[in-house]
Amino acid sequence: SSHFLPSYLAERDMLSAPYEFPEDSPIEQLEERQQRLQRQISQDNKTLLWCVRYLKEQSQAFMDLYPKEMEREGEKEYQRVSISGEEKCGVPFTDLLDAAKCVVKALFIREKYIGLSMQSFCRTTASYLEELSDRPLDMGIYEEIPETSVTADQTVHPPVSATHPYENQDPACMPPDIGYGCKMVNGVVHIYTKKDSMDTSTELELPYPDLSEYIADMNVMTALIINGPVKSFCYRRLQYLSSKFQMHILLNEMKELAAQKKVPHRDFYNIRKVDTHIHASSCMNQKHLLRFIKRAMKKYPGEIVHVERGKGQTLMEVFQTMNLTAFDLSVDTLDMHADRNTFHRFDKFNAKYNPIGESILREIFIKTDNHVEGKYFGHIIKEVMADLEESKYQNVELRLSIYGRQRDEWDKLAQWAVKHQVYSNNVRWLLQVPRLFDVYHTKKQLSNFQELLENIFMPLFEVTIDPTNHRELHLFLQHVVGFDSVDDESKPEHHCFNMESPLPANWTEEDNPPYAYYLYYMYANMTVLNHLRRQRGFNTLVLRPHCGEAGPIHHLVSGFMLSENISHGLLLRKAPVLQYLYYLAQIGIAMSPLSNNSLFLSYHRNPLPEYLSRGLMVSLSTDDPLQFHFTKEPLMEEYSIAAQVWKLSSCDMCELARNSVLMSGFSHKVKSYWLGPHYIKEGQEGNDIRRTNVPDIRVAYRYETMCEELNLITQAIRTDELEAITEEEGTLCMGPV
Amino acid sequence: SSHFLPSYLAERDMLSAPYEFPEDSPIEQLEERQQRLQRQISQDNKTLLWCVRYLKEQSQAFMDLYPKEMEREGEKEYQRVSISGEEKCGVPFTDLLDAAKCVVKALFIREKYIGLSMQSFCRTTASYLEELSDRPLDMGIYEEIPETSVTADQTVHPPVSATHPYENQDPACMPPDIGYGCKMVNGVVHIYTKKDSMDTSTELELPYPDLSEYIADMNVMTALIINGPVKSFCYRRLQYLSSKFQMHILLNEMKELAAQKKVPHRDFYNIRKVDTHIHASSCMNQKHLLRFIKRAMKKYPGEIVHVERGKGQTLMEVFQTMNLTAFDLSVDTLDMHADRNTFHRFDKFNAKYNPIGESILREIFIKTDNHVEGKYFGHIIKEVMADLEESKYQNVELRLSIYGRQRDEWDKLAQWAVKHQVYSNNVRWLLQVPRLFDVYHTKKQLSNFQELLENIFMPLFEVTIDPTNHRELHLFLQHVVGFDSVDDESKPEHHCFNMESPLPANWTEEDNPPYAYYLYYMYANMTVLNHLRRQRGFNTLVLRPHCGEAGPIHHLVSGFMLSENISHGLLLRKAPVLQYLYYLAQIGIAMSPLSNNSLFLSYHRNPLPEYLSRGLMVSLSTDDPLQFHFTKEPLMEEYSIAAQVWKLSSCDMCELARNSVLMSGFSHKVKSYWLGPHYIKEGQEGNDIRRTNVPDIRVAYRYETMCEELNLITQAIRTDELEAITEEEGTLCMGPV
Repeated sequence: SSHFLPSYLAERDMLSAPYEFPEDSPIEQLEERQQRLQRQISQDNKTLLWCVRYLKEQSQAFMDLYPKEMEREGEKEYQRVSISGEEKCGVPFTDLLDAAKCVVKALFIREKYIGLSMQSFCRTTASYLEELSDRPLDMGIYEEIPETSVTADQTVHPPVSATHPYENQDPACMPPDIGYGCKMVNGVVHIYTKKDSMDTSTELELPYPDLSEYIADMNVMTALIINGPVKSFCYRRLQYLSSKFQMHILLNEMKELAAQKKVPHRDFYNIRKVDTHIHASSCMNQKHLLRFIKRAMKKYPGEIVHVERGKGQTLMEVFQTMNLTAFDLSVDTLDMHADRNTFHRFDKFNAKYNPIGESILREIFIKTDNHVEGKYFGHIIKEVMADLEESKYQNVELRLSIYGRQRDEWDKLAQWAVKHQVYSNNVRWLLQVPRLFDVYHTKKQLSNFQELLENIFMPLFEVTIDPTNHRELHLFLQHVVGFDSVDDESKPEHHCFNMESPLPANWTEEDNPPYAYYLYYMYANMTVLNHLRRQRGFNTLVLRPHCGEAGPIHHLVSGFMLSENISHGLLLRKAPVLQYLYYLAQIGIAMSPLSNNSLFLSYHRNPLPEYLSRGLMVSLSTDDPLQFHFTKEPLMEEYSIAAQVWKLSSCDMCELARNSVLMSGFSHKVKSYWLGPHYIKEGQEGNDIRRTNVPDIRVAYRYETMCEELNLITQAIRTDELEAITEEEGTLCMGPV
Repeated sequence: SSHFLPSYLAERDMLSAPYEFPEDSPIEQLEERQQRLQRQISQDNKTLLWCVRYLKEQSQAFMDLYPKEMEREGEKEYQRVSISGEEKCGVPFTDLLDAAKCVVKALFIREKYIGLSMQSFCRTTASYLEELSDRPLDMGIYEEIPETSVTADQTVHPPVSATHPYENQDPACMPPDIGYGCKMVNGVVHIYTKKDSMDTSTELELPYPDLSEYIADMNVMTALIINGPVKSFCYRRLQYLSSKFQMHILLNEMKELAAQKKVPHRDFYNIRKVDTHIHASSCMNQKHLLRFIKRAMKKYPGEIVHVERGKGQTLMEVFQTMNLTAFDLSVDTLDMHADRNTFHRFDKFNAKYNPIGESILREIFIKTDNHVEGKYFGHIIKEVMADLEESKYQNVELRLSIYGRQRDEWDKLAQWAVKHQVYSNNVRWLLQVPRLFDVYHTKKQLSNFQELLENIFMPLFEVTIDPTNHRELHLFLQHVVGFDSVDDESKPEHHCFNMESPLPANWTEEDNPPYAYYLYYMYANMTVLNHLRRQRGFNTLVLRPHCGEAGPIHHLVSGFMLSENISHGLLLRKAPVLQYLYYLAQIGIAMSPLSNNSLFLSYHRNPLPEYLSRGLMVSLSTDDPLQFHFTKEPLMEEYSIAAQVWKLSSCDMCELARNSVLMSGFSHKVKSYWLGPHYIKEGQEGNDIRRTNVPDIRVAYRYETMCEELNLITQAIRTDELEAITEEEGTLCMGPV
């Protein structure tokens, strides 16, 4: 460190001075400054050395906490902060125990539902839970989880194909029809080995989640997050995690930076980043959309793009009716940029009240299903894809919409993608389902909620059973990583999901079902679908809803129980128990501070830096560049602003980028290439700084810190049980003579 | 407004919704929301209408305050905030009067020095001062000012040349030698009609600033800014200006946005912007420099780029001695990015203590004067220029360094520029002079301060007298707009500039002269130079120092008295009197919040939004993209972050951009093209929204508000003088009978 620090300062200062400093001969001020610097450095080193000695003494007790593999060779030395003494967490054992029981209970619940649905669950957490799993805790179908939860990761997605994936449509290459039947029962699709006789006799043995068990678990969770003592326990632990990270930085920042510098070639610009939350219809920035529209007006003036009362309108005519010329158009006239007035104004829905009728622009340019079969939308998305491929290191997971109004939505969407060859190695799809049942119901398009579910899921089962009948959809699905659930979470919810709630087929009331209801039935059907797809060797899907952007806290409970990761999670800052659980389960949280800044939470109050310091699995995403970003590189803009406003170090930035890849839906093969062949392994074993530019020190710190937390919790429970047993034995001896 | 508001919301919300909303048929929630919206709108309108009525009543008294031209036709109607009643400014007349006298005094002082040096002074302020100028106030050589101060603007710079300016080097095309002589007397160059006999008899009649008068004025200013009552008066006025702007926004925001939308084609992306503060040696971002270095290593491995003890080193060898390959290099190894550790650490000077010797990189790649004659630096600057030209709307004023160690620095620099054809219509030069006399003196390179001044200024007089003898310099100077003065302002200053201070020829002590001393002598020589250049019909230069970034407040006094505009001005937030004066004189302030964020002041505490709301002439600049910016568009990045963090409206952004052009050194012809042919005119007459995208409403508000301020001040003085006269008459009548 001492040899390194001066060079570190010098290098930066050297090239940054806006004017040259005379080459040689020292002068008073310089010497002064230099001496000050030297003093400070040696001071720092004294402190560091002192810490090392001090911590060395402590470290034995501390190392005992860790699984053996921590002590393998090649592990980087760094300054560790450790706690010794009896009461490791500063609260009486009984309080610790109560809290621990609740936390472990919650983690088991998540593990159960994530495993059941073949989504991935944090391996470290799983290994600690395993040690307890033979204990008399309600494990449900827990036994089958570890295996799947581990293998899931490897098999979720096909590797990125060298050849264009949409090209091999030859039916011969398609997997055959297996002739199964399927129908929806109580809102969940059931599968039968015979199309003609679908009854219990022919029903396929798949693990179907059980509604009553789910409601029970949900109630456990709800009680648990408002439990006072548990709340303050989790709050203390989160505070502890913050301060511990501050100390880690003070002690190791220089080492982390040195490690990054040692890596040849690699820097923040050329590590892989995934924009894990971005909507296809607004993934281009305003200027891009504007230029595209102008080009289209020049290129296809005569093309019929819209039909008004049976009469076709050319692009030219459309603009004439709005009396606008290509020249007139400006970003201001499009007026799609968020501004002060959008703050706390999520009501994005009054398009149809738009008097000057630009909703036509939307229909023509950013819809897949219009008179030109989404040609323009396809083209502009492909332009975005081309930019991403040129950037090489930036990747996105674009949201496309499935509404559930008709049965053919999936096929139409897939046909659009295949027809216009909308595909890129830098892009994967998520399908977002807007929670708009109430709207369709009022419009008499749907008579009950189950119809919505059928429109969303039946096509997916049909294509999985017989790909040859939905060829485009089969190919398209290979690039779909999962489902998103979207709408304004701050909308009031009048209904509470419980055993009395009507089943989907009987949900015919005006009110929209609550968030939890939507999420459960999406989860349930996805779970069955995943088992069927796994059987056929197809890629499985995950649930990654918008969650905790606004509205009631309990959305975050549903998210915790059912989804692999979430978008936003802002409200975790108001729910310490859930925040602590999201940390222990390492649930991915795709945050978009610029989007929040315009809608719900001003930038410098955003909790991202706090989450990051505590070790939650957060990443940066743009959400909606069309509205919120100015430059040609929205993701870089998002990172830049975060770095500037919150003074993030290069190491923090690279950690965020690595998280974004980890929580993304790109294939195991791709991730191994981006993060290193062992990225699945725990701790620094799983890190390859040559690819991630994240120092092993940082990864080790995160891993050790989490092990310490998990150990604290699980050990408390084990100790308690041991005592219980010895007591028992005690009472036995004292039995009647 | 009412017709406009819903469409305004609808448009944005319509296109921003990440998923499509069903076309027709209203539903409960929607109606609810819509009604809420409607209620709110009509509410707003009621308020607006009410305000209009109220303000109409008030407006007569208010309109009387304005020069007649305000009432010309075509003036946009908007909601005006006006104050009626006797005590217009909420303080007793006597307090107002005392403050007014001080403020006016200060403005006259600035007007005198700015006029004398042929820099430009705010016309509106000048016109108000003129009304007082026949009053018995110390006017110095004030009489000759208005003319120059106005014409200056038109003649400062030659129009952008269609043909390449560096090409016509034919001596025949050069202006002839006029055979004058010049020598420096007491730190200021004097000019004589004969080379051989330089004495008072042959001395040219040019206005030389008078040192004793300057010191006197400086003392007046110093006393004035610490005067308690004046301080609180100015503080109140600044507060008033803030609140008035808030009201203006609440009443007119919608109208401003509507006006911007009405303008065809124009938006924030295609209005002209000038980066008015950026250093050439760090104008490229890190990634760009890195790529350039890698390319150079591939392209010129064998080129001798550096001489170590008489032995030439090829580029290849240089990197071998650092044992680095092109592949190894990364942004981290270059390590030129500011981070947490640069905060309050301006010591950029320890390059030579750099153990791994990358200072060589600096010498090879970002210096004009090295073994390859600055070839690489020339090339990378030309790449930056190409990007700017491609962007079309972004322009920069790059700083190059003159140190004043040798007499030939100017010629060498000009030869570099001409040899490598480093020129762009999007770029102008400023010459920055680091305040490093103490360093050169200790190194025995200079024996007294006058030598530094001679090295900096004599060549400029020689080339102005005889361009044929310094052809490259003559051509190069046509693209130089002025001087910058740079160094760490927070360095302690031991000396106070007064009549006892040694003259430059006698300044031989260890200490560096103080900021005020440097600035005065740069100003004095520039003033003489400008008069000579004007005589010859050459472009004149202006003073635009770094000022008020840190250190003592009185730097801002020197800046106020001597410079056309300044960079940074952060400390104005702690000096209400000066801030008010900078406002009334509309002194340009080029601010760089990202640079400050890394060095002196964290982002959200930066005063820029406050300055802007009060109407100070602020602009956004990058200072140092190499250190502070991430994307390929540093200036857009700077704007984007400001807009996001401070929630600036599109109108605010466009106002900032317009300010940047106004305060820049681009020629009158260019500005007329960028801002509109009448941009020199006062108020909205001078604005052309079709080019600036700034609504007339905003410009009118700024103009009227400033007139109101100036009127308040000057009227107070006039009233007082009238009373004085009438009293006199009174006493006369009552004289002895």
